[in-house]
Amino acid sequence: MILQSVIDIAEICARKDVQDIVLSPGSRCAPLVLAFARHPQLRVRTVPDERSAAFIGLGIAQQTQKPVVLVCTSGTAAYNYAPAVAEAYYQHIPLLVLTADRPPEWVDQLDGQTIKQSQIYGGHVKRSLDFPVETNHADSQWHATRLINEALNETVAFPEGPVHINIPLREPFYPEEGETFAYSSEVKIIEEVSPSGQLASEAVSTLQAELKGFKRVLVVAGQGRKDQDLQEAVQNFCRMTGAVFVTDTISNLQIEGETINYHDVFLAAKAVKAEPSIQPDLLITFHKSLISKNLKLYLRGQQQMQHWHVQPAGQVADTFQALTRIIRARPESFFQQITFTQSEQTVAPAFANAWFELNAQGHSVLERFQENSPFSEFKACHQVLRNLPANSLLHLANSMSVRYANLIGVSELENVEVMANRGTSGIDGSTSTAVGAALSTDLLVTLLTGDMAFLYDRNALWHNYLPQNLRIVVLNNHGGGIFRMIEGPRNQPELRPFFETDQRQTAQKTAEDMGLTYLKVTDGNALAEALPKFFDLSAGPQLLEVETSSPENYQVFAAYREMVQQEISLDKNSSL
Amino acid sequence: MILQSVIDIAEICARKDVQDIVLSPGSRCAPLVLAFARHPQLRVRTVPDERSAAFIGLGIAQQTQKPVVLVCTSGTAAYNYAPAVAEAYYQHIPLLVLTADRPPEWVDQLDGQTIKQSQIYGGHVKRSLDFPVETNHADSQWHATRLINEALNETVAFPEGPVHINIPLREPFYPEEGETFAYSSEVKIIEEVSPSGQLASEAVSTLQAELKGFKRVLVVAGQGRKDQDLQEAVQNFCRMTGAVFVTDTISNLQIEGETINYHDVFLAAKAVKAEPSIQPDLLITFHKSLISKNLKLYLRGQQQMQHWHVQPAGQVADTFQALTRIIRARPESFFQQITFTQSEQTVAPAFANAWFELNAQGHSVLERFQENSPFSEFKACHQVLRNLPANSLLHLANSMSVRYANLIGVSELENVEVMANRGTSGIDGSTSTAVGAALSTDLLVTLLTGDMAFLYDRNALWHNYLPQNLRIVVLNNHGGGIFRMIEGPRNQPELRPFFETDQRQTAQKTAEDMGLTYLKVTDGNALAEALPKFFDLSAGPQLLEVETSSPENYQVFAAYREMVQQEISLDKNSSL
Repeated sequence: MILQSVIDIAEICARKDVQDIVLSPGSRCAPLVLAFARHPQLRVRTVPDERSAAFIGLGIAQQTQKPVVLVCTSGTAAYNYAPAVAEAYYQHIPLLVLTADRPPEWVDQLDGQTIKQSQIYGGHVKRSLDFPVETNHADSQWHATRLINEALNETVAFPEGPVHINIPLREPFYPEEGETFAYSSEVKIIEEVSPSGQLASEAVSTLQAELKGFKRVLVVAGQGRKDQDLQEAVQNFCRMTGAVFVTDTISNLQIEGETINYHDVFLAAKAVKAEPSIQPDLLITFHKSLISKNLKLYLRGQQQMQHWHVQPAGQVADTFQALTRIIRARPESFFQQITFTQSEQTVAPAFANAWFELNAQGHSVLERFQENSPFSEFKACHQVLRNLPANSLLHLANSMSVRYANLIGVSELENVEVMANRGTSGIDGSTSTAVGAALSTDLLVTLLTGDMAFLYDRNALWHNYLPQNLRIVVLNNHGGGIFRMIEGPRNQPELRPFFETDQRQTAQKTAEDMGLTYLKVTDGNALAEALPKFFDLSAGPQLLEVETSSPENYQVFAAYREMVQQEISLDKNSSL
Repeated sequence: MILQSVIDIAEICARKDVQDIVLSPGSRCAPLVLAFARHPQLRVRTVPDERSAAFIGLGIAQQTQKPVVLVCTSGTAAYNYAPAVAEAYYQHIPLLVLTADRPPEWVDQLDGQTIKQSQIYGGHVKRSLDFPVETNHADSQWHATRLINEALNETVAFPEGPVHINIPLREPFYPEEGETFAYSSEVKIIEEVSPSGQLASEAVSTLQAELKGFKRVLVVAGQGRKDQDLQEAVQNFCRMTGAVFVTDTISNLQIEGETINYHDVFLAAKAVKAEPSIQPDLLITFHKSLISKNLKLYLRGQQQMQHWHVQPAGQVADTFQALTRIIRARPESFFQQITFTQSEQTVAPAFANAWFELNAQGHSVLERFQENSPFSEFKACHQVLRNLPANSLLHLANSMSVRYANLIGVSELENVEVMANRGTSGIDGSTSTAVGAALSTDLLVTLLTGDMAFLYDRNALWHNYLPQNLRIVVLNNHGGGIFRMIEGPRNQPELRPFFETDQRQTAQKTAEDMGLTYLKVTDGNALAEALPKFFDLSAGPQLLEVETSSPENYQVFAAYREMVQQEISLDKNSSL
């Protein structure tokens, strides 16, 4: 007999708003596979490589904003989930990770596929729970159903994240002929109502009073989802106070003409770094990580400022080594509550003027450079991003793709949301995450990736759910071209063999194996010609490979860097 | 300046008998990469996918029996090592895992590629150490060099296994122009001399006296390496006492005519399971895990017996739920010491006769079945294994390949050693492990694998070190055919989509991408024709795909199982 408590895991998940399950095949996990596969309300997919399966689950949860359940068998399967679990932990993505296991008495007894699975993800899950082995006693049944409820509640409590339940299972794994396999009509459900995320009015008054003392206020948004209400709240705050709003590409809160989007360009200019007119006295941040290393380094240099970080709960990072106040509120509530009802232009206009002047210079340098430079992957990125269709999703792989894209930006595009695995910034699951996203939206999903990230995660496409709306652009420079961009490795004799890793493959055979239409270009004209059809939503899944040379890419990028140093400076602008 | 203590890690490794380093590229790990890549005595390779890199390292260490050093960058790279680390832990393979990290103050600060790396492998390493961040103080330098010594000593102390050192590194990661990058001429070395592994003479006397009281002694060897001295010691013990020696394919101690090799065939027969004449009163075991589930189940049914396990140190598994005595000695020493100088045929001859009679029946059934059955993957395995060249290595992937091979056996082949990842029995690194083995021997290395295991681990071949002596046989039944062999899943409607996973790829494009010559066969004649050239050592790396149908494979295997039930029985043999 399969334990009723195991069958009911699926029922509890369905009742608690879970929609998607990603399974990986195995014997030990069979009771869980059956419980989920047979549930009429759940959408179940199976992906053989657990590393990819978990990132696909992450991509689905990123889109649906509901917990996705992962199910794997015992042994190292659980460890293959670990990279995605860590990414979900830092990117705040709700995953419920169910690992089938032998009962504890069989651990370390030299029986197949048995490792020490309890607590296997260390500090990279919000909680790690052990499902009961037997559920004969009523208390054990209560324990079993309570655990699933607690785990699901925890995945979506702020900050969202992964929860692990290790599930020891004894044979038989399959119902015998005539055995009933049905969900209980009554299962225990524990609901959790979230806090409002609002500040108490006394706290608002204190913060407002303090706010009036600051003359140069910078607001910076880390990685987050598109959010109209939040965007308006910050916009309104900036209008009322004169504060400047800086957004990375993955902040998804850019407003053309109202936000600083080219900071990653202009903050690289040496002339700007010591410029007093842009130095903030108050930095307000919210959401997750930033891509822009230039912005991070710049802000770490501003030790004169106060730094308020707005986050309703959970551990807070001191990314700029300048943190002075943690504000426990939802960002939207905070900005709504803190904004004066009448304009209080406490912030010096010169501060915003300087930031926007530099932003304009950055934008101008970037576009002029792209117009005049020879073809390279930097230019290819620019072409791709400037031609992205409106109302689509962009997924940026680590590591050069996301950096190029953050320089180039997508702010002028209508309703393009940008995703990237910037929780841990690995190259190990970018394609899988984009696949997961594409499975969960009707929008076109474009993945911009390099050859290393794409080939590393090629099993992302090894299953039977190739999304029709998926487009993959592979920037193939035959190695980790990023290492040539960095002065240190570029000057070492080990550059080509040990840092770039000199890989000779193209993505063609992988695309063919996986069922994607394959296109390859090596110059800008061919790319321009290919893009309209590539982005045609009815054209089916495609992979467009842009082959470039790493030394040439470096030359182009070095010329760009030089132009930034030459052309960006506030001194030029006499109006300031 | 790069810390001298970091540069000297490579020097200590070289002086302590390390030969092979497997790197994966990254920025944070650059000082380690340079330290190893520049060392004149070390063989350094770079493999981009860390999951494969770690299994390749495991394959190298399996062959060289020396610790292999793995070096990866910070972030989820470390987690991609985890499946191989767990396999190394249970398979007792010495690995020194060096993970570059940010200094601890930067953990959880939303800076790229930073996770909680300290202790990341949980209980799957022998030790987990933290390298000092600063080494200005003399005590820190002592700490740094001591740690490397301790770790390497631990990897090779019985039972061998992986040790993890997390190495926090601050910028700069690359030497500046003119900076000296040299190994210290004097580095601290701590040697460790192993214990003899011999029993005290009083213990020997006691055991010998007890031994005389047993009439039916079975010796079973788990997974181990070829070992002439050990083989002779056990052989001699069995001759003197009349004990019966049972060897799995991966025991690598088979002696044609003197060991039981077809137990996995005949112990499946219901008629045999309750047969009193083969029931042991003493079981003596040594080494690691067994493949044969039939043997494991049989021995778990023998609760009347005593079970002595010989293992010099470390945790002992009670695989048969019958363990009564742990003997802390090296198996070779134990059998040498315990063997009577004159024959003491305390064991009833009928006991050995019954085992050898069944072994002959098993062998006979297997060969007659293969002769007369239609083509299937079982038959293909038989053809491949019976044609393996002498003096070669065979690597068996999980999960059907290793099971077929354990039924078929390789005992009559001259000097064929058999490897398999049976520490955790995962499919995730079989190809990589075989690649690592092939990189470390001049012998031909044949990997026998299925389509799921092969495609799962295709990045095993994604690097610039394709071994000329590698041969891969892919048994492609387009899914996890093992699930059809098991009664439970075979009878579920979820069989094809959720257990077998219905994958449509062949290995052709992967072989082409990776530079292997590709051959495909779908029948026995074509296979027979292909094998001589395939096994030609001068022919270069090849992949031979044997495409079969899962339902047909099941029919054949079911017929084989039926034949075992029909034909194997001791009753037939009146001489007993």
